[in-house]
Amino acid sequence: MNPESIFPTGFSAAGVACGLKQSGNPDVALIVSERPCAFAATFTTNVFAAAPVEYDRALLARTHGDGLRAVVINAGNANAVTGEQGMRDAAEMARATESALNLPADSAFVMSTGVIGHPMPMDTVRAGISAAAKAVSPTGFSAATEAIMTTDTVPKTASIALELGGRTVQIAGMAKGSGMIHPNMATMLAVITTDAPLAAADLQTLLRRAVDVSFNRISVDGDTSTNDTVVALANGAAGGENLRGDELAQFAGALENVCVRLAKKIARDGEGATKLVEIRVTGAQSETDAVRAAQTIATSPLSKTALFGNDPNWGRFLAAVGRSGAQVDPARASLWLSAGDVRMQLVGAGQPLPFDAAAMSGALAANTDVTIEVDLGIGAAEAVYWTCDFSYKYVEINAEYHT
Amino acid sequence: MNPESIFPTGFSAAGVACGLKQSGNPDVALIVSERPCAFAATFTTNVFAAAPVEYDRALLARTHGDGLRAVVINAGNANAVTGEQGMRDAAEMARATESALNLPADSAFVMSTGVIGHPMPMDTVRAGISAAAKAVSPTGFSAATEAIMTTDTVPKTASIALELGGRTVQIAGMAKGSGMIHPNMATMLAVITTDAPLAAADLQTLLRRAVDVSFNRISVDGDTSTNDTVVALANGAAGGENLRGDELAQFAGALENVCVRLAKKIARDGEGATKLVEIRVTGAQSETDAVRAAQTIATSPLSKTALFGNDPNWGRFLAAVGRSGAQVDPARASLWLSAGDVRMQLVGAGQPLPFDAAAMSGALAANTDVTIEVDLGIGAAEAVYWTCDFSYKYVEINAEYHT
Repeated sequence: MNPESIFPTGFSAAGVACGLKQSGNPDVALIVSERPCAFAATFTTNVFAAAPVEYDRALLARTHGDGLRAVVINAGNANAVTGEQGMRDAAEMARATESALNLPADSAFVMSTGVIGHPMPMDTVRAGISAAAKAVSPTGFSAATEAIMTTDTVPKTASIALELGGRTVQIAGMAKGSGMIHPNMATMLAVITTDAPLAAADLQTLLRRAVDVSFNRISVDGDTSTNDTVVALANGAAGGENLRGDELAQFAGALENVCVRLAKKIARDGEGATKLVEIRVTGAQSETDAVRAAQTIATSPLSKTALFGNDPNWGRFLAAVGRSGAQVDPARASLWLSAGDVRMQLVGAGQPLPFDAAAMSGALAANTDVTIEVDLGIGAAEAVYWTCDFSYKYVEINAEYHT
Repeated sequence: MNPESIFPTGFSAAGVACGLKQSGNPDVALIVSERPCAFAATFTTNVFAAAPVEYDRALLARTHGDGLRAVVINAGNANAVTGEQGMRDAAEMARATESALNLPADSAFVMSTGVIGHPMPMDTVRAGISAAAKAVSPTGFSAATEAIMTTDTVPKTASIALELGGRTVQIAGMAKGSGMIHPNMATMLAVITTDAPLAAADLQTLLRRAVDVSFNRISVDGDTSTNDTVVALANGAAGGENLRGDELAQFAGALENVCVRLAKKIARDGEGATKLVEIRVTGAQSETDAVRAAQTIATSPLSKTALFGNDPNWGRFLAAVGRSGAQVDPARASLWLSAGDVRMQLVGAGQPLPFDAAAMSGALAANTDVTIEVDLGIGAAEAVYWTCDFSYKYVEINAEYHT
């Protein structure tokens, strides 16, 4: 079985076109659970949080993460900076979903992505929700994944199955995101479903940590969206008591694995990207410092254009580390660059080392996966971060994707 | 007289080609004062500060800002991340300058700009300094300005003359900078000369404030250089006692004026730039918050590509403000966009306002100077910040400017 085609027991989904996207592509997705789910979510920290984010925050607070049955998502309009009307529209999307699926109140979670500052065309959206409700099926996962794409060039899923105390538990995630990608609590839209039985409070704890080392460790352009949301639903269909102790820890590892794989897919599909760049920082005084150094390389336009140009321009990487605020000993810092089978040390103990620049550049040109390793020479903490390169295509996409 | 052709009394300069730039363009500049100067400087905060930065910091400390006679600058090699040899080379550039001009020890200031991590070809540099020393003349200001350019497309100068207590005082500044531009104490290379008589401590105080509202308020790409240095020299040739009180305040205003004009020239000439963008943030709780909000727009790739695309995409500007960390009231925030004679309010009290998007886009396309105004709706503090747009050309310059 294709590991990405797993869809946990008791969930169904649909993706339909209602006309929000000018392209006519599918733009409304529904994920439905046949039984009530424990759920957890993390949201953008952007002050201009979109209306659905405000709706979901309140929903999570008043339900304490229990009783979720559906997630409705539209692409093409972010319902952000839309004032009071936007808040009414987000609530109406939840009501329309509950009504179309015959669900109780407060059982639908709402996500939106697309342009900012345009009122939601609610007639269109209502029709889309109604059509999606009729189309839900246990095989609708990939249609839903396609419906949430905007500038994404590929749908993004990751799933895993694990044996826990004699039962098989499945986790499946879908995500969208390509531009306005920069971590801040949660990044972009992702839905994680599992048939494991879990207490809502445990799920929130596990999700927060998993998001912290996955979606919060990627950057395409340094811009934090107004709509970032990751939601996890656990419907318990795998059976048995709620996970605890060792089983919970094993589940946490599997959840983290799914989130990291989704996050890397977002970075790889960054707007205009030609490369997935993994940045490994070691020798840091703290994990925070390691993240800070890695993130500064990941958001440095000079570093990202050098990677697009297949240029082993380590001076730009170190200059970024040097302005990051991370503690670093310039006399001990070291740097390695890898692509494919080629791995070269370019800086050792603060000194430039002679290296075959032509061979390194050739390896960069021949591979889509690149790793930058930096040793800060201070301590023992480390972190991994993912980004993409910065190409002509990024400028084209963002200069021509008009409001 | 062209206000940009002022060169204060008692200074001379030269720019010559010694072969550091592959293009064969001038690459070594000298600015020489016939009498000892009080001097002040601000430097990069990048941890990987270049060797000349370290040399100059120590020079400023041991001379207390007195007795400077010359500034030597090379373009084409940054002498950064070059280890112990780099430190020896920076010191040797100072010694060679002092020797070629028959100056006492500790009277030369050193600046370098160019690629990072390459050893300085000292034979070439020595020959350049020797040739420049022979070429210095009171009319050599523009040759020196051209010699310090790297990816700059135009030389950058700004000057002013003012009457202070019956004497004429002149200030002239030159600067270079186009990429790796992001404020952090001081940004890129600039030399300010004045014939005003000033105590070194006063000059340091005034320079720090002037840099704070000029070079520290521009960003091209968010990347803080390893070599950023602004130095100001006051030789007192205008005569009279050191400036104090009201005269010092008037001089401070003039110095700020010169620094702001140089800084705007750097932003306007940002790598690949087609527009100078002024960002005015008002209604902030503090000046720091206003700068934070403005700077986040100024470094947002999504905002900068929208401006390149002549797209009045205010959602991207507000999303940047929302992630900046500045205090903002989403229900009171307002935003205006101007280009040429067209000024439109796009957001009022947190609500999108109807506007003629085609007319606004046309005005953006027809003008090189754009202003974004944001009212945070919180307090009374404000700040101005300058940046440029983000174009295909930026990617080309930085993907193809190889190490």
